Amino acid sequence: MSNRNFQSDNVAPACAAVMAALNEANEGFAASYGADALSERLQRLASEVFEKAVTVFAVATGTAANALALAQLAPPFGAVYCHETAHIVTDECGAPEMYTGGAKLIGLPSADGKLDMGRLQAAIALALDMGVHHVKPAAVSLTQATEWGTVYRPAEIAAISAFAKEHGLGVHMDGARFANALAHLGCSPAEATWKAGVDVLSLGATKNGALCAEAVVFFDERLAADFARRRKRAGHLWSKMRFLSAQLLAYLHEDLWLENARHANAMAAALADGLRSLPMARLLQPVEANELFVALPEAAVAALERAGFLFYRWPYEGLVKAVAIRLVTSYATQAADVEGLLASLRSVGTVTA
Amino acid sequence: MSNRNFQSDNVAPACAAVMAALNEANEGFAASYGADALSERLQRLASEVFEKAVTVFAVATGTAANALALAQLAPPFGAVYCHETAHIVTDECGAPEMYTGGAKLIGLPSADGKLDMGRLQAAIALALDMGVHHVKPAAVSLTQATEWGTVYRPAEIAAISAFAKEHGLGVHMDGARFANALAHLGCSPAEATWKAGVDVLSLGATKNGALCAEAVVFFDERLAADFARRRKRAGHLWSKMRFLSAQLLAYLHEDLWLENARHANAMAAALADGLRSLPMARLLQPVEANELFVALPEAAVAALERAGFLFYRWPYEGLVKAVAIRLVTSYATQAADVEGLLASLRSVGTVTA
Amino acid sequence: MSNRNFQSDNVAPACAAVMAALNEANEGFAASYGADALSERLQRLASEVFEKAVTVFAVATGTAANALALAQLAPPFGAVYCHETAHIVTDECGAPEMYTGGAKLIGLPSADGKLDMGRLQAAIALALDMGVHHVKPAAVSLTQATEWGTVYRPAEIAAISAFAKEHGLGVHMDGARFANALAHLGCSPAEATWKAGVDVLSLGATKNGALCAEAVVFFDERLAADFARRRKRAGHLWSKMRFLSAQLLAYLHEDLWLENARHANAMAAALADGLRSLPMARLLQPVEANELFVALPEAAVAALERAGFLFYRWPYEGLVKAVAIRLVTSYATQAADVEGLLASLRSVGTVTA
Amino acid sequence: MSNRNFQSDNVAPACAAVMAALNEANEGFAASYGADALSERLQRLASEVFEKAVTVFAVATGTAANALALAQLAPPFGAVYCHETAHIVTDECGAPEMYTGGAKLIGLPSADGKLDMGRLQAAIALALDMGVHHVKPAAVSLTQATEWGTVYRPAEIAAISAFAKEHGLGVHMDGARFANALAHLGCSPAEATWKAGVDVLSLGATKNGALCAEAVVFFDERLAADFARRRKRAGHLWSKMRFLSAQLLAYLHEDLWLENARHANAMAAALADGLRSLPMARLLQPVEANELFVALPEAAVAALERAGFLFYRWPYEGLVKAVAIRLVTSYATQAADVEGLLASLRSVGTVTA
Repeated sequence: MSNRNFQSDNVAPACAAVMAALNEANEGFAASYGADALSERLQRLASEVFEKAVTVFAVATGTAANALALAQLAPPFGAVYCHETAHIVTDECGAPEMYTGGAKLIGLPSADGKLDMGRLQAAIALALDMGVHHVKPAAVSLTQATEWGTVYRPAEIAAISAFAKEHGLGVHMDGARFANALAHLGCSPAEATWKAGVDVLSLGATKNGALCAEAVVFFDERLAADFARRRKRAGHLWSKMRFLSAQLLAYLHEDLWLENARHANAMAAALADGLRSLPMARLLQPVEANELFVALPEAAVAALERAGFLFYRWPYEGLVKAVAIRLVTSYATQAADVEGLLASLRSVGTVTA
Repeated sequence: MSNRNFQSDNVAPACAAVMAALNEANEGFAASYGADALSERLQRLASEVFEKAVTVFAVATGTAANALALAQLAPPFGAVYCHETAHIVTDECGAPEMYTGGAKLIGLPSADGKLDMGRLQAAIALALDMGVHHVKPAAVSLTQATEWGTVYRPAEIAAISAFAKEHGLGVHMDGARFANALAHLGCSPAEATWKAGVDVLSLGATKNGALCAEAVVFFDERLAADFARRRKRAGHLWSKMRFLSAQLLAYLHEDLWLENARHANAMAAALADGLRSLPMARLLQPVEANELFVALPEAAVAALERAGFLFYRWPYEGLVKAVAIRLVTSYATQAADVEGLLASLRSVGTVTA
Repeated sequence: MSNRNFQSDNVAPACAAVMAALNEANEGFAASYGADALSERLQRLASEVFEKAVTVFAVATGTAANALALAQLAPPFGAVYCHETAHIVTDECGAPEMYTGGAKLIGLPSADGKLDMGRLQAAIALALDMGVHHVKPAAVSLTQATEWGTVYRPAEIAAISAFAKEHGLGVHMDGARFANALAHLGCSPAEATWKAGVDVLSLGATKNGALCAEAVVFFDERLAADFARRRKRAGHLWSKMRFLSAQLLAYLHEDLWLENARHANAMAAALADGLRSLPMARLLQPVEANELFVALPEAAVAALERAGFLFYRWPYEGLVKAVAIRLVTSYATQAADVEGLLASLRSVGTVTA
Repeated sequence: MSNRNFQSDNVAPACAAVMAALNEANEGFAASYGADALSERLQRLASEVFEKAVTVFAVATGTAANALALAQLAPPFGAVYCHETAHIVTDECGAPEMYTGGAKLIGLPSADGKLDMGRLQAAIALALDMGVHHVKPAAVSLTQATEWGTVYRPAEIAAISAFAKEHGLGVHMDGARFANALAHLGCSPAEATWKAGVDVLSLGATKNGALCAEAVVFFDERLAADFARRRKRAGHLWSKMRFLSAQLLAYLHEDLWLENARHANAMAAALADGLRSLPMARLLQPVEANELFVALPEAAVAALERAGFLFYRWPYEGLVKAVAIRLVTSYATQAADVEGLLASLRSVGTVTA
């Protein structure tokens, strides 16, 4: 039977190559806390991938990666500007506040999940006007792909980065689905990050084939100062670090990450195509990565649920006689899974018509 | 060639049973964030092991387990009393301070690594006397086995717990090497913990055969309130939680943890026996678990280092013409490894004699 | 010459009665840290004023009062719901985040500065739906009078409090201008606070005649547990506490606070009346306390500035050919000051007409 | 009747000159938050006093001054080295931990209350050896006069500062009783601070004649970066800042602070002289400032208490048949007060002899 779980890309298992690398790493004694050979190799491989000498720190979760990265950029009395739907605002139970020692996340609205330049400018102007009474502008955080499944173009990133830097702000990218964005853009990792002004990237792997691995990538080693202590202090330095590094090595090896992402994106595109052919369905956002937001009649959503499909109902203002749902594909989603969902919807359509 | 790494028990790979469980868990789609079947099973197995309905939270590192557990017991204005050499004081880069929001660890001295009751009583009396000017006594933290490789008897734990509870303090046990302590004591997990007054246990697995798994075990579910949010907020909730739970399930299954620990302890005992027969060596502490602290002539230590043995020189006051080193065995240490080290020392002895 | 400073009520000096009390308190030796006779008397007087046995803690600033009060209600992983323009959100440089250890302030919009019940309900529903991934709803904070100079009716407070308590949230009131609100309402302090469900009040005095005094008033002593340590830990426990208590005693004595507030409100009302008679001016909010928000032509605002009047230009969306300014009156504002500003504006009107 | 309160120098009222300045400052409207004329004048006066362009921030309490100053020097993952009896360790309920975001205070023992260079060197060496697992050495904090009433010589401060700076640590001085130390030393404020390597001074005034005023003095403005936001965020920026600045202006004006301190020291010296003539009394420390630590028979201490004298019994190890008490004099202590206490003790001696 086909898989009916479209809740998230994190419901998939680890992919075969990552698992093989993990087993291979489990051989003999190795220096702990990152002094092992695999961890050293990771620094080199990441530098090749990004065409620059980067400083990489592996951690097990995206929340840790984001919160640790932001703590490097924002002091406790600082402000981090991001989209109002950003994962760091709504889904991390205050991890950035914990790690920064209480910095404030200032969420700005926009329809497509991307940071709105006008809103950002206004927010910075207000802060400067208020001086010591207001938190100090410290960083912007961009989610790539965004929480609405859209993808920033390098030029969009560059524009925001340029403005941020004029005002002394650091630029963080939450790349939980960076591979999916990159697969969509077709540009190089460098072009999508440091060449567009990104200072530090949370590079996700877990949602795209790893068990539990993300990398915090600094494009300027000065920004990484004392990061090692922050990671240790947060309990995110593994003693058997080789098992984190092994996952990331396999992930970045010979473009596995991009292959996985391309597949996930292709499944999302197929799903989008199918949905477009259904009169009752309306895509709420462009489908550029591996997330779809669809408005459907309540009866259709309920029918999918009864049929055992798993997904989230999603808050979306302004819908009339419809509810929004989110569907996520992954490297492990199969064409048959997509077809299964579409078929189920079509049969609902017939019945409810 | 035999293994010459005695730096720590965390330089060993994961044991076969844990690795097999990990591979087995990597099958199909599963609910994320701990709603999977393995994570549910872990609650039941842990409750069986401890003969009580416990509440268990898996995390990847011991520092995370300790810091999260202490955050449940100590408010930001609280004091945690522990041994001055406790891992939480010296080796976690301030993780307990971070997680508690700034509570103070008050380290008390003693020769054998165990909390000294008289010192504890004096410290609490001082705090009560100073009132609002001093941090509020909130918890004691016991390390089992201790940082000096010694093991608390259940009656010792019970005496400290009783005093702690008279004054409203919670009792935490840092059980990074709890299995080694238990193997030494020969009592039940229950007798070594909640029956002796322990409220929350950091149950280590990584040093004893896992890749990256520790469990925070609450013996009273009321103390676990909101812990799930603390873990999430710290970035320690894995999306693919099945991979943490699988390790712990294998670890606790059919006494694997105790078997591994018994082996490690036996290797330490064999090493201790061999050292006792060497006139130049002096054991600085009773060898009750899997850590040995040995005073040796500088020449002997240097010779071991030259021979490729790995271990830490250890601070120890009062030595004359000798230096202290720490040797750690693990489930993966072989009799030949122990014999190799002893042989090397004996040859040094011959030469330097 | 008349006073031309309408920037804030905190530009005024201390009133005579408060200053006299301060001088009187400076007599002889007195127990430190609040064990003096004046500090004890303050507890009794506050209990009389609020018709209930309250627990009162004096501090020097409103930011301290708010942040300390919120730290009692919200854990580090908690959410505090308030108006998006609340002082705690925009003007305290992140003090609530610092004191709570990183709780999140969730600012909700509305036109009149009051918390919108529908927005609050939606925000709580979202949090409950997201579970552990989202911060935990912990408190609401109401500003009385609001940042827009409007005043909550007791029934409005009661409705929000009732909803908050259904969901386990505490209710904080930022009463930096509580006396002005009370003077407007004409009800008792009890009716405006605990009888309407308020748990803890930041009772302002500095803006209304004190040098530097605010009181955190708990209406349920259980909520005040450990507050004394929080205050000490924040450096807000004075050694010579008598000088804080003396100010608050004078402030609450024989309704001085209400007299001062009535005067400030009357000056605001007079100013509002005068502005209503000017065709070029438009009041942007009802004038219920001692703050006025007025839309004026840029030329008029510039003319006032040139004439030496001091006030803030205020962000206000949607104005056409006009700018908004804020004018604040205080106990020290005189009728001549008001008349001076109106006369200046009238002369501008003549010139520009 | 003479004053019998020797508990602390903070039980005294404010001195006449400070009170007069406060009343004088209460005239007319003034810009808030430190933009007033008195606050500007304070910067100039402090720079004259210290013979250097200093950056000064006034706050109301010593705990706030210390915690804010340390937050500038130590990151959350940092270590602050100080004497084990330092006020910041034992008497501030964890304020430094709160303000630094969880830095660790490492208290080192010594008999006379001064930081022991050997202990400091060993502690730094240990930290460097442990690397990322240990908190990062960030600052030393010296208390002047010390908690045992002794006074660092400039050369002693310079030696510690030099070592600290070699290792990149900042140097903080807790000068709650700096005036008393300076009065003892007879050197210039500059010689006792920045010329000896001090980076930031908490300059106390409250214990020596103010109502509620301390100054954080930075000797290098770069170290003061963002301090204004830290102060605001902590609720320690007064809106009516003129009332803090006025106190400090009066305090530093024409050496009032030194006069007050000289008087307090002279009273302590007189008390010490009297005690030395009593066979039953033993001074436990050199009396260099305004605190005395005396060992007396229990009967004598009890008799003093019965006679209405107020003071603290003080922990002191190693006494036989005696208890230690602390006696503190202030600018307000009179010769008759000292004589009263000595007379009471002499009469006890007669009776118990």
